[in-house]
Amino acid sequence: MKVVVLVGGVGGAKLAYGLAQVLPPEDLTVIVNTGDDTWLYGLRICPDLDTITYTLSDLVNKENGWGVAGDTFNTINAMRRYGEDAWFGLGDQDMATHLLRTRWLREGQSLTEITIRLTKKLGIHQQILPMTNAPVATIVDTKEYGEIDFQTYFVRYRWQPTVKSLRLAGIDQASVSPEVETALNEADVLLIGPSNPWLSIDPILNVPGMRELIVKRDIPRVAISPIVGGEAIKGPAAKLMLELGHKAVSAEAVAHYYGDVINGYVYDVVDGDLTVPQQNVTKFETIMKTDEIKVALARNVLEWIEQWN
Amino acid sequence: MKVVVLVGGVGGAKLAYGLAQVLPPEDLTVIVNTGDDTWLYGLRICPDLDTITYTLSDLVNKENGWGVAGDTFNTINAMRRYGEDAWFGLGDQDMATHLLRTRWLREGQSLTEITIRLTKKLGIHQQILPMTNAPVATIVDTKEYGEIDFQTYFVRYRWQPTVKSLRLAGIDQASVSPEVETALNEADVLLIGPSNPWLSIDPILNVPGMRELIVKRDIPRVAISPIVGGEAIKGPAAKLMLELGHKAVSAEAVAHYYGDVINGYVYDVVDGDLTVPQQNVTKFETIMKTDEIKVALARNVLEWIEQWN
Repeated sequence: MKVVVLVGGVGGAKLAYGLAQVLPPEDLTVIVNTGDDTWLYGLRICPDLDTITYTLSDLVNKENGWGVAGDTFNTINAMRRYGEDAWFGLGDQDMATHLLRTRWLREGQSLTEITIRLTKKLGIHQQILPMTNAPVATIVDTKEYGEIDFQTYFVRYRWQPTVKSLRLAGIDQASVSPEVETALNEADVLLIGPSNPWLSIDPILNVPGMRELIVKRDIPRVAISPIVGGEAIKGPAAKLMLELGHKAVSAEAVAHYYGDVINGYVYDVVDGDLTVPQQNVTKFETIMKTDEIKVALARNVLEWIEQWN
Repeated sequence: MKVVVLVGGVGGAKLAYGLAQVLPPEDLTVIVNTGDDTWLYGLRICPDLDTITYTLSDLVNKENGWGVAGDTFNTINAMRRYGEDAWFGLGDQDMATHLLRTRWLREGQSLTEITIRLTKKLGIHQQILPMTNAPVATIVDTKEYGEIDFQTYFVRYRWQPTVKSLRLAGIDQASVSPEVETALNEADVLLIGPSNPWLSIDPILNVPGMRELIVKRDIPRVAISPIVGGEAIKGPAAKLMLELGHKAVSAEAVAHYYGDVINGYVYDVVDGDLTVPQQNVTKFETIMKTDEIKVALARNVLEWIEQWN
C-alpha cells in the first residue's frame, strides 16, 4: 500500500515517524511544506524539510521535535560577537545541512534533488520531497507589524502578532515537481498530517495543479485533525483559526475547511461525536506524546482505511 | 610613527601582535596576503586575514597560531555524516566569520569594507587590510598533481608535493585599494613580517602598482627573515626555496630575494654575520615563541629603525 502524507513540521513529523515504522520504506512518501523556508545568514533554511529529515533519520532532538539532538550553538553565538541580531537559532550540526543545501542550490541543483541527496546520505529510505522546487514564502499580514515573513512571525515574535491574512509569495511561479506528481499518481492512500491547515497544508495544496492532482485520485484521502479538544496540540493553529475568522476552534471546523480535498477524517477520542462533511470518519488517540502512540496512530489509521473498501 | 607591516599568516601575526603592544593602535596597519583565500563549503575563506584578526582580538588559539581558542568542529563533523570529504577543518566559532563575510560579499561589499567591519566589531583598533579587493588565488604547480590551489597544497597535502612553480591567478585584474594606498603613502616605516616570501609576501608585492608604491617611499623598509639557521620557523619556506631553485636555504638568500624592495634587514642572532645587499642590517632574537619575545622583537626593530636617521 503506497502512502503519501502531506506535512508541515513537528506534528506531521510525528505521524511520518509512525508511518515509517509500519510501512516498507519504499511505500512511504512525505510531501513537505516549504512555505516556511527562508534565507538567513546567507543560508537557505527549510525548517519543515529538516524536521522531517531529522525525525526519520533519528537525529532529531526529541524534546523539541526539531533540530539535532545534542546540538551546540557555537556559530550562532560567535555571530552575536560580531553584533549580529541572530534571533533565529541554528545548531552547529544543523548548520551542515544548510551549508550543503545552499551550496548545491547555488550550483543549480533543485531542492528536490538536494533533499533526496541529503536524506539518502542519512540512511533514510523513505522518500521526502519538498512540495515544489520553486521558492514560495508564506507572508503573514499582522496587525502589529504589517506584512512579515513566516519565520519573523513564528520564531522572532513567537506567533504572538495578530494575523489579518496570509499570502504565498511566489506560488504563481511554482509547479508540482515530477517526483511529487508521480508519488501522488501512484499513491494508494493520501494522508494529511495533523499539521497547521493554514500555515503548513495550504501552501502545499496551493501549488498550482496540486489540489487537482489530489482530488482527481479516487483513493482514500484522509486528514488527521490538528485540533484536539478545541486546542492546538502545538503552535498557533487555534489562535490563527479565530484570527482568520473561523467561528470556533474545533476539529469539526478543520474538517469543513478541508472539504472535498479529503474523503475521510480522523480526530481525537476526546472530541466525542462530530458531524463532518466527509463520508468516512473515525476517532483515535491522536496526541503523539510517545513513539508508541505515533506508531499506534499510524497503524490504526491505515487499518481503518483498509476496511473502507 | 606610522607603521605598515606586510604579512601572511601565523609568523606575520606574531609580529603584528608584538607591534600592536608597542604602538598606538591608530599607528599600525597590517596588509595581509589574500592569495591563500578560497571557496570551500560555499563560503569565502580568508585564512591569513582571519589569523591576523583572531590574533589581534586575542581570540586566537595560541597553540596553533590560527583559529579560535576552544573552538569546536561540530558543523564539519556533521558534513562528514553527509559523506562530504571535509578535509579543510573549520571551527564552529570560526564559521561565523566565514558566514558573515560570504553574505556581505554576495551583497556587494568589498573585502576591505568587510574586514574593517569584522575587525571593528571584535574591538580591534589597528587597521587590518586585505592586499586587494579582487580575488587572487595562488596556484601551485606540483610534480605530483599538476596545478592545485593553495589550500589543497598546504592543508590537504600538508605542503608535501614538490613545487615546480607558483602563479597568481587573477592578479592582473587586481589593484591596490584606496585604503592600502593611503596607508603606504602615510607610512613612516614599512615592515615585511617573517612570512613566507614566495607564498605570503610575493602575492602582496605583485598586486599591480604595489611594488612601485612601496619602493618609491623614501622610508625605512625592513624585512624580518623567516629563515633561521637554515630552516623555516614554520611551514614550507625552506623546502620551497630549494624547489624553486635557490641554491641555499638561508636568511641571506631571502635578503637577496627581496633586493631593493627593502633597505633594511633583520635576521636571527643564531645566523652570525651575514652579507646582504641592504644598507641597514641587524640581528635580534626572532623566533617568537612567547608573547614577550614578540613584543621585544617589535620594540627592538622599531628602536633600531629610529636610530637610522
